[in-house]
Order: sequence, then structure tokens, then C-alpha cells
Amino acid sequence: MDLADLDTIGVATAIQTGRLHPREAVEAAIARIEAGNSKVNAVISERFEAALEEADGPLPNGAFRGVPILLKDLTAQMAGEPNYLGNRLLRDIDNRATTDSHVVKRLRRAGFIVLGRTNTPEFGSAPTTEPLAFGPTRNPWNLERSPGGSSGGSAAAVAAGFVTVAHGSDGGGALRIPASCCGLFGLKPSRGRVSKGPQAGEGWGGASTEGCLTRTVRDAAAVLDVLAGPEAGDPYVAPPPGRPFALQMLDEVPRLRIGVMDRAPINHTDPACVAAVGKAADLLANMGHEVESAYPAAFVEGRSSDFYTTLLSVAAAQNLAHWERELGRTFHPHEIEVTNELFASLGREVSGVAYLDALSWVHGWSRRMAQFWAPDTDGGQGFDLLLTPTLTHPPVRIGELVPSAEDPTSAMKSIAHWIAFTPQFNMTGQPAMSVPMHWNDDGLPVGVQIVGPAFGEGLLLALAARLQAATRWDQRRASAT
Amino acid sequence: MDLADLDTIGVATAIQTGRLHPREAVEAAIARIEAGNSKVNAVISERFEAALEEADGPLPNGAFRGVPILLKDLTAQMAGEPNYLGNRLLRDIDNRATTDSHVVKRLRRAGFIVLGRTNTPEFGSAPTTEPLAFGPTRNPWNLERSPGGSSGGSAAAVAAGFVTVAHGSDGGGALRIPASCCGLFGLKPSRGRVSKGPQAGEGWGGASTEGCLTRTVRDAAAVLDVLAGPEAGDPYVAPPPGRPFALQMLDEVPRLRIGVMDRAPINHTDPACVAAVGKAADLLANMGHEVESAYPAAFVEGRSSDFYTTLLSVAAAQNLAHWERELGRTFHPHEIEVTNELFASLGREVSGVAYLDALSWVHGWSRRMAQFWAPDTDGGQGFDLLLTPTLTHPPVRIGELVPSAEDPTSAMKSIAHWIAFTPQFNMTGQPAMSVPMHWNDDGLPVGVQIVGPAFGEGLLLALAARLQAATRWDQRRASAT
Repeated sequence: MDLADLDTIGVATAIQTGRLHPREAVEAAIARIEAGNSKVNAVISERFEAALEEADGPLPNGAFRGVPILLKDLTAQMAGEPNYLGNRLLRDIDNRATTDSHVVKRLRRAGFIVLGRTNTPEFGSAPTTEPLAFGPTRNPWNLERSPGGSSGGSAAAVAAGFVTVAHGSDGGGALRIPASCCGLFGLKPSRGRVSKGPQAGEGWGGASTEGCLTRTVRDAAAVLDVLAGPEAGDPYVAPPPGRPFALQMLDEVPRLRIGVMDRAPINHTDPACVAAVGKAADLLANMGHEVESAYPAAFVEGRSSDFYTTLLSVAAAQNLAHWERELGRTFHPHEIEVTNELFASLGREVSGVAYLDALSWVHGWSRRMAQFWAPDTDGGQGFDLLLTPTLTHPPVRIGELVPSAEDPTSAMKSIAHWIAFTPQFNMTGQPAMSVPMHWNDDGLPVGVQIVGPAFGEGLLLALAARLQAATRWDQRRASAT
Repeated sequence: MDLADLDTIGVATAIQTGRLHPREAVEAAIARIEAGNSKVNAVISERFEAALEEADGPLPNGAFRGVPILLKDLTAQMAGEPNYLGNRLLRDIDNRATTDSHVVKRLRRAGFIVLGRTNTPEFGSAPTTEPLAFGPTRNPWNLERSPGGSSGGSAAAVAAGFVTVAHGSDGGGALRIPASCCGLFGLKPSRGRVSKGPQAGEGWGGASTEGCLTRTVRDAAAVLDVLAGPEAGDPYVAPPPGRPFALQMLDEVPRLRIGVMDRAPINHTDPACVAAVGKAADLLANMGHEVESAYPAAFVEGRSSDFYTTLLSVAAAQNLAHWERELGRTFHPHEIEVTNELFASLGREVSGVAYLDALSWVHGWSRRMAQFWAPDTDGGQGFDLLLTPTLTHPPVRIGELVPSAEDPTSAMKSIAHWIAFTPQFNMTGQPAMSVPMHWNDDGLPVGVQIVGPAFGEGLLLALAARLQAATRWDQRRASAT
């Protein structure tokens, strides 16, 4: 048995059938991290000793007993462990969580062993992972490239084979973007599917969700079953799936009507991204689905990104204010990165009324967007899915999207161009996934995004499983590490 | 058959079995409104001609084919019909809705015939119904008293026997308060149970919900079945009930653990309200439930009302800004009532950050509140229900809580004292109902509030049905009209 061939379910099964001891699984993962992390800089805090102790048991008798996992160091707070959020001050004072988040409670109750925490851009506010606090995480497919962000540390760790699954979160594409950049599968669950509590509530107007990054679809489905479900007092609660996602993933996929948007409506889209969508569209058509060129009219309402920026900038300002209250002092300018300070200073100028105006607009716009997926009997357009590129370009170079102090806005424009397809479905709360459908001529992964109706994770997972079976992306391995 | 003896299901059944023609039902309701409305001032706009035409058919073949209903003139927009929201300017310019709300679509699809719209305090922001635009609605049990608010017009219309059911909404108690004042049953559904779209999204941070006022529990259950269910793009979506509420209402009620708080922790509570809770507690104990003195510790965290005031004041300011944009001009001072102007001026001073801070606090507090209902295996207190008075006093006198221009805050303090039990469960999003358990020595109705766990409407309805069967409150009729 070569451990490197196994996915999360493979490791769990090997442990449950006695072919692998949790300690071997943990030791192997530690060895891989120790061998590769200096190259990719994915893991920024380790708990190897504690993990090894846990591996010796007793462990909760869950489906993932003894399986190693890594947590993005943004949410997924774990009592006693660091929570630096990519920020220098929080790193310098060695800020540690005092309680477990529900996500961590659930993962540990399922038997997962946490090996450490992964890199994230400061406060998770960028689509690459290059915080000044910890330096850039590099893409295991090409060390000069970014793994994307903000769950870039987690994605690089999975792509580098450190672990088979890592926690991540997605408030604007932060699971899908790194999945696309690292040749992984990344599903952003529906609003309210996974609790952000007890630490966080609203999560960017309900836009931000928790999830995971994996190589295989079955891993994503089974781990979502662990994470999914309401916790007492959650502000948003998704209707329960009815049956486990791990089973829904196996369901027959009915003939679907799929709208395809193979490039950004205005800005340039890299031919490799267009090609990735074309490949997926052909494959889906060959599977018998009805595939046609179409997208929600509301998608191109330009104001959506302005209003989302308003919501996020207020959240950024509130986040800083929150930490300043917690720490009992203000951040010095050199303790906050330029984009976050810029964002927060924008947010400080936004009135409560303007915030609610933005949120109301986003809600109305979400209703217009949803018409694309609504049954035609109900005045909707009757599509089951929307297929788009995940990003307008393959993984960017390290540093390429890092704003400079002199001209931060030009990098922010490039960022907006790059992530032209993902934040929309944070605003609407729909499930959306990035599927590794293509590698460009330079061997860089290029994902496609498929967006389902609200709470339609089961359908997405079932379709993704078919795409994985047809293309076997899971057999490709990053070679730069 | 005496129509006045029938509830909504009674009328619907009489129509479906051919014993009653929709036209007779509509004519009788019109006659009752014409006879009684000058006394109670519940209905502020009529569509009698259109209703009579609809009664002659064809009507949608729904469960409530031909049954008359009234709509609160706040939400429940109906294309072509007035939407004055209790405001003088919107009345003067004869503001009319251009599209149906989902609530109205659903009611009409079920066969209901809309007879008109009911009175509401300006913008729904008071717990009595005394807008300057239309004058006070009076309580059918005693015309010197208020029916409560903000769904006071609808409650008075049902208590006066104009109709058997009327639409209402509840953002701080606005279904439960008038239910308590008018001897009716009023259930505030869970957050996300009933869509507020397409016109509204957020609804006071998810606090405000749509519902109805009825005399009988079975009416409330069956009409909730009509209203419940997500619409495309809803920001909040409640998990589906599984089975119709009309059936869940018939379920055996298991032995429940019920916490009782028979008076406000600090302020004076009228003995009649304490007695009403005592009566309900005794009845529940006699039914075999475990009844004990207990309430959520978080209930008495005083900051909850400050933070909710912050959220509501920003919403008030945004509401005025919205209408000013729609109308293309600002309100003159004499076109806005003093509380709303005061509230909006507070809200205009609140920053986006302060708004998000308030919302974050409310979310954290909701998690603490929810522990009361969480299983003890999960660290919770393991209660099934909380029983409280609905209000600290029986229905107030007309004018008693109307703020004066000179000293608006003293009325606002009295209001806060009166509604000490209801807004909490708007903030948490839990279902809560007012049950007409008691009449004081002056013959004024006094309700009790029973609060369920999130999405527990089925349990509340089943229990309420038992309480109705035990006390037959539905046989009592208001006599002042």
C-alpha cells in the first residue's frame, strides 16, 4: 500500500480495516510536511507532538478515525492553538483561540487528527496567499506561481500531498480559487450549510462559508457530511440534505440543462480557461446533458461588485475594530497590510444606511440571479447548472497581485479581473464548485466552476464524481515538490 | 349554518362541499366590515368590487377557494392595490404596489379572496396601531383600548369577526402582541419560513417574518402551510417542515420540559399577565408536562435591546431613504411621525461598523439564548419550550403609548416596558406564539407567549391545539362591535 495513492476515504478505510495505524498515518504526513514545507510554505503552525499523542489513542470512533488534517488559520479556531489570521501583530503576540469552533469540534468528533494550521492572506482578504506575516505560499505545480487564496495554504498542502484533506473557507471564491490553481476539487457549500459559530455569525452578510479542499469528490462529499448541520443559534440554517452527501454523490444524474459562459463578458479571458470550459461542456454534452450558451442576465449587472465591496469593506473595518477591542490597543500602520488598511478605511466611511442599502441591493440582485435556476413553470429560466471558468487566468505569479503601498488600486483592479466569476455566488449563497478539468501548456492547473441552485450540493457532487471518473484528474500529481 | 361560528377551515369546507358559495362568503364579510369598521377602524382600503367579481369565479382550486382574507398594509404588497404603510405622504400620493409579494401570490393561489388592507402604525414601528394617516384602530373587546400592533388592524378585523384570518407580520412582536390584545392565536414563524420577497430581503437582520392572525390553531397551521416555503433567491431559508403543519398539529405531544418565566425580571408585570402564565403552566402540568421556573440566562442581558434598537434605527433610516429615492423627494417633517423621525435620525448617525458590531453581538447572544433549548447532551439546558407573558400589561388605552412631540422618549420607555418579552425571539429567529389563555376582570384578553426551538412550529401548533381544546377560547367573542 502506497500511502501517497490514497485519498481521505482510502486512509480512513486502511485504518478501519487495520492495515494502517493512525500513528503511521500521522507520522507519514509529518514526514511529508517536513520534507516539502520549506518549498511551498503551506503550514505555518504545527502540533505534531499532540497529533502523535492523539494517534496513540483513544480516538473518537468516527468515520475518519486517525486521519490527518490541516486547518486554515483564519476561521476553524481550535482551543489553545494559534489563530494569527495572517496578521503580524496577532503572530507576534502569539494569539491563541480559547474555544473550538463547531467546525473543529465536528472534525475531531469524526476522528480527524489536526496536524497544524495553514497559511492565509492577512484576514483572508486576498485571492492569493502572500501575507507579510508568513511570506508567500507557493504552488506545488510550479513554485513561481501562487496556489491562489485565501485557502491557499490548505490547497498547497493537499496538492503537495502533505494531507489528503484540509479545511478552508470561501467568502469570495477562497475555496474555488485555490482548488482551480492547485488542480484540486473545491466545493463552496450553500449558505447556512456549515456553522461558522460559535465565534462568527453573519460572515460577510451570509456570504462566507466553511468547507474543505480535497483531490477526490468522494472525500469532499464525506467531509461535508461531517461539517454540515446546524448548531444552536446559527443565523443561517440550510435545509438538511435528506440523505448523506456521500450517498447523493452516487445518485444517477438526470439529464441536466446546463448554461455555459466560457469567458468573462467584458474582460479578457485566457484561452486555457476558455478551453477548460469547452472541455467540460463537451464532456457534459457527451454524457447526455443539454448544454447551451447562456448565463443569468443579472450576472453582468456591474453594480454587484461595487455593493459587495461596500459590504466587505465595512466587515474589514469591523474586524479591525473587533481585534483592537480584544487587544486593548490600536494596530500600528506597520501591523496591517496596505490593502486591509485601505479596505478598512473605506469601510469606516460607510454609514449603517449605506451598508443596509448595499445589502438590500444584493438581496434583490440575488433574487434576479436565482431566476436562472428557477423552474420555467415559475417564471424562471429553468437551468439546472451554470458552467463558467473559475478564474480568468491560470495561477498568477508570486507577487503579481500583491498591492504596492504606492499604488494599491492597480493590483486591486487586476484582482477583480482575475476573480470575475466567484464572488457572485457568495452573494447569492448558492453552492458552487471548482473542478480541475484542464492543465495548460505550462502544466498549470485550470479549473472550471459549476454553480448549482441553492442547497443543491448533492447534484453538484454527483456530477463532479462523473467528471472525475471520466477524466481521472485525481491521478495527476504536482511535481514541483 | 351560522357563518359567524365558522373558522377559516370551516368556511373553506362549507364552500368545498357546496353549502356556501364564495359570493355569499364575500358578501357576508363585506356586510360585517361595513357594519363594524366605523367602530374599530381596522380596514383602511377596500377592494369589494374586485372581490365580488373574483367570487363569481373562476377561482384557483386551492384549499381556501373563495375564503375572504385581509392583508396588513405594510408588507404583503398586491399589484395595483394601495401600499401606504400607515404614512400620510404615501396615502396622499395614493402609492400602489406594482407587483405581488410572494405572500400574496401564495394566498391567492390557495384561493383566498382579498377584501382589502388593514391599518398599521406608520412603517410598522409601534406596538399599537394609531397612525396619524388613518387614526387609531380600536380593540373589539373594548373600544377604548388598543388592539396592539403593528398587525393591529388585522387582529381587530379578525376579533371583530370581519374575516376569520388576516395577514400580519412580526418584527418585534407584531403578530403576538395584537393576538394577545385581541384574544386571538398568533404564531410568529421561524426565520426564513415565509419569504419576504420579492420586495424585501433582509427584514431587520432576519428578525421580521410574515404570518397570520386567526381565532383557531388549525387555521394558523393550514395557512402557514400556504405561506411556508422558499422562493428563488431568499436570503434566509428555513428547513422544510417535512409534513404539513396542519398534520403536525394533530401529532401526539410528547412529555415536554417547559421553562416558565411568569413576570418580567425587573419591571412590574400586571397580575393578570402573571395569572395568565400561571393558568397555562397549571394546564400544561396537568397535561403531564414537566413545568419548572426557568429562563435563558441570556434573556436578561440588557444590551440586547440596545443593540436591537441600533439595528432597527438603521433600518428606519434606510426605509426613509428608500422611499425618498422612490418618490424623488424628501419627506417634509409633517409627513413623518415623531418616533419614526427620531428613530431614523438615530439610525443616520450609526456607522456601518457599529451596525455590524450590533449584528455580531446579536448573533453571539442568539447562540447563548439557544443553549436553553439545546439538548443537555450537547451542553445545552435541554428545555423544549419557554412560557412567558406575551406583554407585561393587558391592552393599553388608545393614545397611552403614542409619543408626544415634546417628550417622545417617555412613551418609548413605556413601550419597551410593555413589550419586554417579544423582540428577543425576532432577534434569535425562533418561532413563538401568543395563546389567548386569560381574560382579566375587565374582560380584556391576556395572552401568554410560548417559544419553541428554531424551526419548531410543528410542536408549538400541536401544543396550542391541546390548549385550545382544553380552554375553548375560540368560543369567546368580542362584544364591543
